[in-house]
Amino acid sequence: MLQEADRLLHEGKTIAFVPTMGCFHDGHLALMREGQKHGDALIVSIFVNPAQFGPTEDFQTYPRELNQDIRLAESVGVDVVFAPEANAMYDRGHETYVNLETLPRGLCGLSRPDHFRGVATVVAKLFNIVKPHVALFGKKDYQQLAVIRRLARDLSYDIKVVGVPTVREADGLAMSSRNTYLSKEQRRSALALYESLQLAQELVAQETKDAGKLIEKASRLIVSYPDTKVDYVTLCDPDTLEDVERVDRPSLMALAVWVGRTRLIDNAILTP
Amino acid sequence: MLQEADRLLHEGKTIAFVPTMGCFHDGHLALMREGQKHGDALIVSIFVNPAQFGPTEDFQTYPRELNQDIRLAESVGVDVVFAPEANAMYDRGHETYVNLETLPRGLCGLSRPDHFRGVATVVAKLFNIVKPHVALFGKKDYQQLAVIRRLARDLSYDIKVVGVPTVREADGLAMSSRNTYLSKEQRRSALALYESLQLAQELVAQETKDAGKLIEKASRLIVSYPDTKVDYVTLCDPDTLEDVERVDRPSLMALAVWVGRTRLIDNAILTP
Repeated sequence: MLQEADRLLHEGKTIAFVPTMGCFHDGHLALMREGQKHGDALIVSIFVNPAQFGPTEDFQTYPRELNQDIRLAESVGVDVVFAPEANAMYDRGHETYVNLETLPRGLCGLSRPDHFRGVATVVAKLFNIVKPHVALFGKKDYQQLAVIRRLARDLSYDIKVVGVPTVREADGLAMSSRNTYLSKEQRRSALALYESLQLAQELVAQETKDAGKLIEKASRLIVSYPDTKVDYVTLCDPDTLEDVERVDRPSLMALAVWVGRTRLIDNAILTP
Repeated sequence: MLQEADRLLHEGKTIAFVPTMGCFHDGHLALMREGQKHGDALIVSIFVNPAQFGPTEDFQTYPRELNQDIRLAESVGVDVVFAPEANAMYDRGHETYVNLETLPRGLCGLSRPDHFRGVATVVAKLFNIVKPHVALFGKKDYQQLAVIRRLARDLSYDIKVVGVPTVREADGLAMSSRNTYLSKEQRRSALALYESLQLAQELVAQETKDAGKLIEKASRLIVSYPDTKVDYVTLCDPDTLEDVERVDRPSLMALAVWVGRTRLIDNAILTP
């Protein structure tokens, strides 16, 4: 229970909610500004959720900037910042998880098998604590957005889930807290993600519709940059995330790329 | 969303909630009467939840008495009866389930492997629809109560979970909608459940503390009745449901017994 949320509800206010892991960049601030349009009050949570990190992943080193985040949230007019401690969110003996059966299987689920279980569980918890009317998520984490839309519907949450467009640096790199991990050289290589999406869209416009060919061209462009390794490049249905063979209708190209030891993701809807 | 619930909340009322599968007997009515003490308004749901029945179980034949149930609910002063259709609760493409990792493993989970996943999922959905402050469950379904207490804590539901004592027929048989399946002879055999619990309590009072011995004596009594078969008899910790070796402190004896083709359950806390 979050007293501020209960007070707002008691006053008849509608609550918009932006759950985050903190270390705010302009992508987060865009979520907050959009959030303000969707409710009388805006609540932002900051919680680096251990349940969504794998045992070899970057939970310990994930950037944390709580004081700066609170100042930034205040600067854009957030009403409540909810920043719980890990042990306040996961009791000793915690054993309940929210699982989805198909949406988490492909894409990031291939290399992060328990990631979406952790995401779905913490989002259900945050929904129950914050009791929002509207919740906003970035489209950069496209699979996460699809999972949460489905979760909200399947578990009968009376919450509207809104996806907000990805915010990019001037050169096209999608904003991410993990960009702070990149060296100067890696920062240049990180552009490979956006450029491969651009290339794929151009090829589709030039009548290349075969998914295998598009994925191959995008992958080749990525590995032409130093210090990059493809985790996956996929073309799928934007709703079901099932693979498509041909881009005959708007299709999601989603990709994850290792740049050095940093794993970055990006995506775009390719339109024929 | 349940308009009546939203209206009650908007009026600042507290909501008590009794989820049921209908076919009301005095056990349900006791839950409702207790519920009225816990909120300004009482909502009862009636939903025979397909997700908690196994493929060979009695989903199709489970007794349904909706009109009579509504009259009974009104007669004890229930404010709202929520009786959704199955297809209103499970969308096409439903794929989100609430899972607990340990509490569902033993006891009824042994012969009903997906039962508690179905229970936990529908209870989460009903909590999100009804938005209660207090929810009441019968202690006859002891493992279910333990699962829901844990679920409510683990998923941060701001809901108090209340367990209500089992209501019994004059001869001791725990009330159950499935008692309607029993023939006259089977009804006599069904008393084996209560009598074995009574016997075990007497033996504990007479200093028999060994769990194996108590389980053996209870099982023998059960199969001395015609047409009975033990599914399980167990002695366990009332909170963790982990097996105990000796009844040195209050311990749960829980049992499931086939009487003909009807599976009945009962339990008691044995106190040394």
